[in-house]
Amino acid sequence: MALALIQAGFGMLDTTPNPRVGCVIVKDQRIIGAGFTQPPGGNHAEIQAMADAAARGHDVRGATVYVTLEPCSHFGRTPPCADALIRAGVARVVAAIADPNPMVAGQGLARLQAAGIEVSCGLLEEEARDINIGFLHRMRTGRPWVRMKSAASLDGKTALHNGVSQWITGQAARDDGHIWRARACAIMAGIGTIQKDDAQLTVRAIETPRQPRRIVIDSKLIVSPEARVIQGGNTWVFTATDDRDKRAALEAEGAEVILLANEQGKVDLPGLMRELGQRQINELHVEAGARLNGALLREGCVDELLVYLAPSLIGDGRNMFELPPLEDLSGKIGIRFHEVKQVGADLRILARFE
Amino acid sequence: MALALIQAGFGMLDTTPNPRVGCVIVKDQRIIGAGFTQPPGGNHAEIQAMADAAARGHDVRGATVYVTLEPCSHFGRTPPCADALIRAGVARVVAAIADPNPMVAGQGLARLQAAGIEVSCGLLEEEARDINIGFLHRMRTGRPWVRMKSAASLDGKTALHNGVSQWITGQAARDDGHIWRARACAIMAGIGTIQKDDAQLTVRAIETPRQPRRIVIDSKLIVSPEARVIQGGNTWVFTATDDRDKRAALEAEGAEVILLANEQGKVDLPGLMRELGQRQINELHVEAGARLNGALLREGCVDELLVYLAPSLIGDGRNMFELPPLEDLSGKIGIRFHEVKQVGADLRILARFE
Repeated sequence: MALALIQAGFGMLDTTPNPRVGCVIVKDQRIIGAGFTQPPGGNHAEIQAMADAAARGHDVRGATVYVTLEPCSHFGRTPPCADALIRAGVARVVAAIADPNPMVAGQGLARLQAAGIEVSCGLLEEEARDINIGFLHRMRTGRPWVRMKSAASLDGKTALHNGVSQWITGQAARDDGHIWRARACAIMAGIGTIQKDDAQLTVRAIETPRQPRRIVIDSKLIVSPEARVIQGGNTWVFTATDDRDKRAALEAEGAEVILLANEQGKVDLPGLMRELGQRQINELHVEAGARLNGALLREGCVDELLVYLAPSLIGDGRNMFELPPLEDLSGKIGIRFHEVKQVGADLRILARFE
Repeated sequence: MALALIQAGFGMLDTTPNPRVGCVIVKDQRIIGAGFTQPPGGNHAEIQAMADAAARGHDVRGATVYVTLEPCSHFGRTPPCADALIRAGVARVVAAIADPNPMVAGQGLARLQAAGIEVSCGLLEEEARDINIGFLHRMRTGRPWVRMKSAASLDGKTALHNGVSQWITGQAARDDGHIWRARACAIMAGIGTIQKDDAQLTVRAIETPRQPRRIVIDSKLIVSPEARVIQGGNTWVFTATDDRDKRAALEAEGAEVILLANEQGKVDLPGLMRELGQRQINELHVEAGARLNGALLREGCVDELLVYLAPSLIGDGRNMFELPPLEDLSGKIGIRFHEVKQVGADLRILARFE
């Protein structure tokens, strides 16, 4: 299963919106085939692994199949993998986790079992959950897994008082940030960040077979059609302002403009998350300023913080999150540290809301 | 040597101002004696270990002595350990580090070698340095090792905008903070902290055989003689104000008042550190507010940060360090992450200036 998880990892950057799944087939104590889910429309992991076994001249009849997610039981872009495994005559299927997709949800395993295949589930469950945290979250809640990235000095400053922020963290941490961008389905920023940095919201520090969708939160619809985030398309602009001319100008550059206002004339953030869930965004990577970060936190729209802390002190400068002043500590936003790692000279902290 | 370091650790709380030293004696592949340096005036580790061996009926003649610091060669409060080892007829001495004390500085090892004892130095050097980081620093620079403690939310806030700070970190982290207090020779705070919290600057969360010296930085000499930090004595008040009556009132409560002003009418902080070095303070534990913290940082008086980060976000609140606004990032204060550990639900970060 550990090897199957490594296989799953090979699909990290391009299986979306499908889950990243890996599969390893073992027979007579030897690995006879392995594979991982291909980009949408391509084979699922089980089919890839069986084809790999066949190409190596092995017969999968009687083999054990290790797969990081329950085999599917429905016709999606591809036929059900459970049926293919049954036809192939495998003896045993070990899954890491069940598929929460309501179209599968235990039916894949049940179908295998009904066909006389020995079935078990739960091996390396936690690791398998982490690799598909966005897909699983979307299946369960209808919303993406929202990962908010921030980079600050040890004393929590993202920039000097004058806005200068390049660079607080080191090259290794900034490159690492692009690895997280690359695995996301979409990268989101607010209009402030777009205007200040002419941010592109693309993956550049590493090679990737797929650029994530780009999302701009722009309540007043003031983003320039010439902005780099608009140029080249692949961008959704969420706004609270219905401006036909501006919309047309942005659409002419290939952007899609979506009106989604709340009663305060801002973009409805919880509504945005539901919309992104419907648009099959599994992992949403947020690189915004303190204001949008604060709004997302206040409205309970964040699932995970990805914080890089640099070994430096700034003292007076910009805060990480703009939140309303509290009168007592019961109002603080509680999280849970999930993982801490040193990246270059910086610390990378993953914290989750759970 | 690892066992000798554990022995040294037994003296963590009360050998000061002497170094914490551990000693293990091995003969015929068996440990025949172990010991650690006693409180000032008591035996050094080597003498303790030899006495331990004798008490167990062992002859140390021909044995190997593992000691975490070079045996002393001078008459201090006790006679030279090097001479005692020579007289005892040991065959070999392995030291972790040489003693930078100018009264030793390699002469201990040289004297052993001249007596025909096989000598080596450098085993587990780094661990041995850490356990006596304050003593070694004072011997090298004449100043204490200054460890500044801070506790904040993940976004770098030590308190709400209204000053409420109890509690941002959890019980485990606060208790851990008292372990660091207990190993220090002195605990220091500014008058702001004393007035706000009526801080005692004592070790309470753990048992300790020795309360560290208490130090208050009080430029205007406004601390009340009734303040808890004054009551019970064992307190030094550093001030920039020569007020005879106030001084007498504080001295009547057992405090010592030391006048040490700079040209701005504040306490001369670099001068303070030299003074504390002369007063044999090895490790100075600073638990101050953002202002004194900032002043110490600006004046280059800090060697290590001990930062507890809680898994919470506050947004708008008090900063960790009051530092002058920067115009560009070249002016940021650079440190180096040394160790990160989870303590309860909080993170403990040790960072060093080096």
